[in-house]
Formats: sequence, C-alpha cells, structure tokens
Amino acid sequence: MMTRRIVDILKNGQPDESLTIQGWVRTKRDLKGFAFIEINDGSSLSNLQVVLNAEMPEYETLLKQLNTGASVEVDGVLVPSQGKGQRIELQAKTAKVYGEADPETYPLQKKRHSFEFLRTIGHLRSRTNSFGAVFRVRNACATAIHQFFQERGFLWVHTPIITRSDCEGAGELFTVTSFDLNKVPKTEQQDDVDYAQDFFGGKAYLTVSGQLEAEIMAMAFSNVYTFGPTFRAENSNTSRHLAEFWMVEPEMAFCDLHGDMDLAEAFLQHVFKYVMETCSEDMEFFNQRIDDSVLATAENIINNEFERITYTDAIALLEKAPVNFEYPVSWGLDLQSEHERYLAEQLFKKPAIVTDYPTGIKAFYMRLNDDQKTVRAMDILAPKIGEIIGGSQREERLDVLTQRMQSQGLNPDDLWWYLDLRRFGTVPHAGFGLGFERLVQFMTGMGNIRDVIPFPRTPLSADF
Amino acid sequence: MMTRRIVDILKNGQPDESLTIQGWVRTKRDLKGFAFIEINDGSSLSNLQVVLNAEMPEYETLLKQLNTGASVEVDGVLVPSQGKGQRIELQAKTAKVYGEADPETYPLQKKRHSFEFLRTIGHLRSRTNSFGAVFRVRNACATAIHQFFQERGFLWVHTPIITRSDCEGAGELFTVTSFDLNKVPKTEQQDDVDYAQDFFGGKAYLTVSGQLEAEIMAMAFSNVYTFGPTFRAENSNTSRHLAEFWMVEPEMAFCDLHGDMDLAEAFLQHVFKYVMETCSEDMEFFNQRIDDSVLATAENIINNEFERITYTDAIALLEKAPVNFEYPVSWGLDLQSEHERYLAEQLFKKPAIVTDYPTGIKAFYMRLNDDQKTVRAMDILAPKIGEIIGGSQREERLDVLTQRMQSQGLNPDDLWWYLDLRRFGTVPHAGFGLGFERLVQFMTGMGNIRDVIPFPRTPLSADF
Repeated sequence: MMTRRIVDILKNGQPDESLTIQGWVRTKRDLKGFAFIEINDGSSLSNLQVVLNAEMPEYETLLKQLNTGASVEVDGVLVPSQGKGQRIELQAKTAKVYGEADPETYPLQKKRHSFEFLRTIGHLRSRTNSFGAVFRVRNACATAIHQFFQERGFLWVHTPIITRSDCEGAGELFTVTSFDLNKVPKTEQQDDVDYAQDFFGGKAYLTVSGQLEAEIMAMAFSNVYTFGPTFRAENSNTSRHLAEFWMVEPEMAFCDLHGDMDLAEAFLQHVFKYVMETCSEDMEFFNQRIDDSVLATAENIINNEFERITYTDAIALLEKAPVNFEYPVSWGLDLQSEHERYLAEQLFKKPAIVTDYPTGIKAFYMRLNDDQKTVRAMDILAPKIGEIIGGSQREERLDVLTQRMQSQGLNPDDLWWYLDLRRFGTVPHAGFGLGFERLVQFMTGMGNIRDVIPFPRTPLSADF
Repeated sequence: MMTRRIVDILKNGQPDESLTIQGWVRTKRDLKGFAFIEINDGSSLSNLQVVLNAEMPEYETLLKQLNTGASVEVDGVLVPSQGKGQRIELQAKTAKVYGEADPETYPLQKKRHSFEFLRTIGHLRSRTNSFGAVFRVRNACATAIHQFFQERGFLWVHTPIITRSDCEGAGELFTVTSFDLNKVPKTEQQDDVDYAQDFFGGKAYLTVSGQLEAEIMAMAFSNVYTFGPTFRAENSNTSRHLAEFWMVEPEMAFCDLHGDMDLAEAFLQHVFKYVMETCSEDMEFFNQRIDDSVLATAENIINNEFERITYTDAIALLEKAPVNFEYPVSWGLDLQSEHERYLAEQLFKKPAIVTDYPTGIKAFYMRLNDDQKTVRAMDILAPKIGEIIGGSQREERLDVLTQRMQSQGLNPDDLWWYLDLRRFGTVPHAGFGLGFERLVQFMTGMGNIRDVIPFPRTPLSADF
C-alpha cells in the first residue's frame, strides 16, 4: 500500500479507500472507547483526523504513546467524517509508532508560543502551524520565480558567493579567510596582513550582490537571472535585516528602463498569483491569524496596473501632502519609508514605480539621464511595505561609466572586466533586485524577517 | 515589432515573416555587393544568418562596424536560405549597431582558443560556442532538478551558508568574520582570539553541507531538498575540485535506504532525460567537439536499471578482477576512483549503487547495520566519472547516534539540536548529496570542473 500525502487525501480522498499515512501527532482526544488523533505530515496546514478504536490491537499502548510530536504510521480506511471541519477521516486498522515525544520535555505542547520563543527552538519550530505555512509559501514563491523566468527563456546563472571585488559600496562586507585568526601572517614589513598567503591570494569577501557578474552573463545570453544568497555585515538588529538573505536579480540585454519596469510588474504579479493559487489555505491562515490585510494586498498587486511616476514628480506630490512627515522632503534627498508608504498606500492605493532618482543618491552603474542630474533608476513601492524592488537601466557608455566611477571615488582598474563589457559589443541593458525574504515577509504578513527564513543569521546569532 | 529569440526563429520561423533580432556578431563574410553576418543572442548554439545587401542604408558603414563581438539590432524578413546548414535566413532591411568590438583588441576573434586562455577572460568566455552550450546545459540541469522535486511535493529549503557548526568533519572550513584582520581582538589573557566580539558572537564558517539542517526540515515537511552553494577550503588544484560549488541534498522522512536508492536513480534519469530533450543541439556539440561518449553515457543512464550491490560483494568482485589496481583492494578500505570505474565501466557497464560500507570509512550520522560493522550508506558510481551521488539512511536511534558521535571524537552537546530530532518524534529517514558541478561536468564531458561554473573559485583564484 502506497503512502499518501495528507494534502492529497484531504483534497481527493474518497470513502472506502484503504491507505497508509505517515506523520506526526498534533493533538489527541481520548474519548470513551475511541480516540481522535490529528496527524500532520507537513504537506498542508490541515491535519488528517485519525480515529482509533478500542478494538484495534495495542489500543491502550498506542494511546499512551501517541502524544503531541510522536511520529506514526497508520493503515486504515477513509470514512466520511461526522465531525465538523473535515470532509473525511481515517478509520485506523493498525498503527505503528516510530518515535515518541515525552510530554514532560517536548517543548511544542499544544498552546500558543511566541515567535521569540520559537526562534530559540529553530530545529522544531517548522512543526507549528505558522512556520509550516511560512515555509510552504516560501517554497511556492521560489518555484514561481523560477517558473516565471524559465518560461521566458532566462537562464538561471550562479554568480560567485566568494568575491574579491569590494568596490560596489553596497554595504559592509564579511571577510572570508582560511587563516588561523590566532596567527594571521604579516608582510615582511610587519605592518599589514599578508593576504598573498591567504587561500585566494588576496582579500576575499562574501558577495553583496550578483548584479555585476549577471551583467557579464547577460552580454552572452541576453536574459539571465540570479537567485542565491547574499550577505551584509551590518550591525542592524531590526525586524527587517538579515546578515544572510537570498536575492533575485534578473538582467536583460537590449532592454531599457521601460522594459525593466514591465518585467518587474509582470514578475511580482505572477509570483503573487502563483502563491494565491497554490497556497490558498496557508494564505487564508495568515489573513486570519497574522495580518488581516495580506489577502487584500495580494489582490491589490495582482489586479492593478502599477503607477509610474518620476522622482521629481513624487517629490512635488510629497511636498503638497497634508501629512507631517518625520523626515524632510526635498529634491535630492532619498525617500524614506514613510514617504514611500504615503505614495503607495495613501495616494495611489496600489504599487507605484518611482523613476529617475538624483544621481547623488544612487549607484555608479545606473545610466545617466540627459539632464545630467538624474539616473535611470526605478524603485517599486508597495502598500504596507515600502520598497520591494530596486532596479535600473545600466550605464552602457564606456566614457560616462568611467567618469561616474571616478567621481564616486572608485578605481576603474579594479573593475576592468566590467568596463570591458562596454568596450566590446556594449548594449543598453537593465535589471532589478528583489530581496527574497522581504517578499515572503510582505506576502505572509510576518512581523519579523527572522521568521521567514529557516535559520536566520543576525548579529550575535547563527544557531543551528 | 517584437524582438524574437533566435532559438525560436530557427525552429519556427516562416518565410516572409517580418521580425527584429538583437544579438552579437559571430562572423562576417563580405562578398561582392552583399555580406553574410552570423548573429547569436545566446538562446541557442546556432547563429541566425543575416544577409546585408549593398542597397540598404549605410551599407558601407555597417560593414565596417559589424565585426566579431559587435552588438546589433536587425529588422528584416525571413527568406529560405540558399546555403547549406540553415533552413532560413534573415534578409536585413535596416540594421543598428549598438556597440562595436575593435578587431585589434577584442580577445575573442574567430579561432580556437584554449580553455586555459578563456579562463583568464571569464567575463567574455560565455560568448563562445563551448561556454554558451555549457551554461545552457547547466541551466537545464538546474531546472530539471527543481522540476523533479517540486512534482513530487518536496519543498526547496534554504539551509544556512554561514554556520557555527564545525563538527561534521567533511573537510576544511573557510572562516567568516567581520574582524579587521590587522587587529584581531584577543581575550583578556591575550592567548586566544576573542570570538565573542565577532559578528556572530563566536567562530563562524562557510557551510560544507546543508544535510543536518535539511534533516530538521524533513522532520516537519517529510520531503525536502536543498540546492545551494557549499564550500571547501581544501588546497586541491585538480580538475575535479572547486572551493565553492553547488550541491543538491534531498532528505526524506519515513524513508529507508531502498527508498533513497529508488529516488536517486529516478532523479538522475529524469535530469539526463530533460537535458537530452531540451538541449539536444548543445549535447550533440559536446559529443562532436568535447567527448564523443557523452551521448552514449546519457543513454546508458536513462535506459538502464542501476546495478545494486553491497560493498562486501563489490570487494569480493574487485579482488577477483583481472586488473592490476594501483591501490590495494581489501575489506575496510575505501574504494578508489579506479575501483569505482572498474565496477561501473568494465563489470556492469552501467551505473552501480554500492551499499553498506564499513563503519570506519563513513560519517557518524549513517545508520548502523545489525552486523555492527557496516552502515546504511550508498554511493552511485557512474561509467566515466566514478562517484556521482553519495547518500545514506540516517541513524534515527538516539542512543546509537550518541555513541557513534562519541566514538568519532565528536561532542554530542555541540549538536544538541540534531539529537533532539531523535528525542522527539524520530523517524527512519534518508537522503543523498549530489555535487552539481560534477553532474554538469559528467554530462557535458568538459575536462575541467572550472569550465562548468561561470566564475570558479580555486586556490589563489577568485577573479570577477
């Protein structure tokens, strides 16, 4: 007899079907002469209700063993359920306990636990309703991302995790070394670390972005995307920051900012639609238990054309806004979260794409506009979360790019290969970056980003 | 007019269709009054032949600009091709050059370059036929992997890259730190690094495997897999080693070694089949130009049931083999590559799964057999490459696992959470690991593993 997944049984199971299930006990109700056991195998939020009858073999022993957390295999027959809340249930014929979970010591007894507490038992928290739902949605998001790009002929490219480029200026870097930190070798003058002796023959870091290497690949395959881990050694102990997180970065040759915005909008809509279709039960759960706006937000994104507005126009609207912002609004200053949320939530009531930011607040690789004051950047601001995607058309002109690097204090020689892409067969190209955990956080309404990645890495914490 | 991908035009394009293409010049042939330009956009190995006619605007200028490596957009009409080698070609109406590539300085002129040379221009090598084919096959492999697991209800789980566990003993570790290596803080006694001051409050490393964390997730979701980067700080300058590589690690609850072998066999067959179907042109190219056995090897894997044999029986066969092995064969010693290849290539002439290795040569987490001498390990040996997959049923018994850790000199307290999985609802479970680059190398026949990852990281080398 094949083992069936509970998600499939709950959906397609018919009365009188004989089958085997395997999973973990969520709850037990011991009634006179029979017992209800709720079994979960991680395939869905809902459990399958199993009915144990006093006539079955080893009934008393089983009942003692089948506490919350115990693992079990049950053979039985599906029957229509008398109780409310489920269509069918499993009438057990035999059951086999694989592993018990002592009610005295198992930390996940049936009660509400705080997410803070659950973080301390990161090896068990996925067995709860909330984290089960989070990681199913996370998987669906990831699958939707690959599907979106693969259907459009984009290649998934693996850009390097360890890098010797430290010139992107995107944040603080982790050092990667094979030195024994107790005896770091020094140069002969004894005044500096002798990096030539390190594994890679020089300073090496964990990547902060795969964009520059993705540009290399786009100059050969036209359309590519990265989906991999990136790192920031920022000492930010907030609910929005992780030291290790996954990022998605598509890069398209022969593409300008309009094409970039079109792709980003279609991308976000696809991912939300896919998750709403494949994880509807989990999404309902978030809406009921975590944040009662998540379904409305998802629908808002799926069903609206995104507003498009320049930074300059956005500043004018913000200056006129009947709101007292904490941070000043003025042309040349970056938008703060409160400004972004005002635009998306109050003013447009849907996602908005702000374009053409001042040169001074954006990265060197963004294409300079003819006004010489702004660059072809775009940020997508979503209701409830603020910036969810940041992208740009890249500077494809060798001379302009070189000047921009110099004016930002970067040495063009350090990125000789990046400049070569402009020397040989350069093309207009564009791309964007999406922080994957921010997306999952946004989608599920989870308050802390540490609760949407299985094993969060944050200052002073890298457990499991 | 929509831009069409060249792979689509070559397959589905019909005479008289008007269309736009964008790509890079591979070759130019200047004939009297017209010219043939071969354009590639990375979507396929084959180029699209474009015919420029002397009557078109700016003909002389275009001809001067359209050298190998230049980027171009062409509007034109498809016509049946007179030449051999292609069904259709594009009669250009107008063409626009985006970026030139000076024939004096562009390194990728039309001639055969060594892979060693191409590694020094890793930012350009993807524009060659060989690397174009490699990275399309790599993408197809990756897509096939996700497809295989997602169709079976496995969740893709992201296990941590930065870890504080150093107790797996799987190889040398890279240290991750936010210290300035010139001033590593010392403890008050000045005799050791004060790791408490480091970012994560302790020693931290780059992961060598996501397996232990995948087991955590399998104990909640039943079936999961990792697909992410892993690291080894081994000073191995060989054609088979990378310091940074991607690994695939499925983990299944309620699964024994038989289920593990069944899954691994179906998995390999699926991936090869998918690549043969979706990248047939690239695979033909490898067979013709790189290794004339790659198609036969792929067919061998797809069409054969894998041989299954215990280590003990394999040793007996090797001892009887009419071959002078360089390394000795004796029960208790690990199999060397020559032994593995003899079994798969000479003896079985198809993939073979060797099981139940001696305890002493396998990791602590593999399930101890009743004979107390062997563990429930399995290695899949493939013709031409040797070991391609290694897996095991995991030790799910708390007492046995604890003893095994102690006998291998590991401190059970360091992996308290791993032991908790056996304390609370333990189940038989199993999984395997596949080195992704080894798979791509095997599939394409590329001689050096540095040539199947876009930006290889090896001793003294982490460029781009």
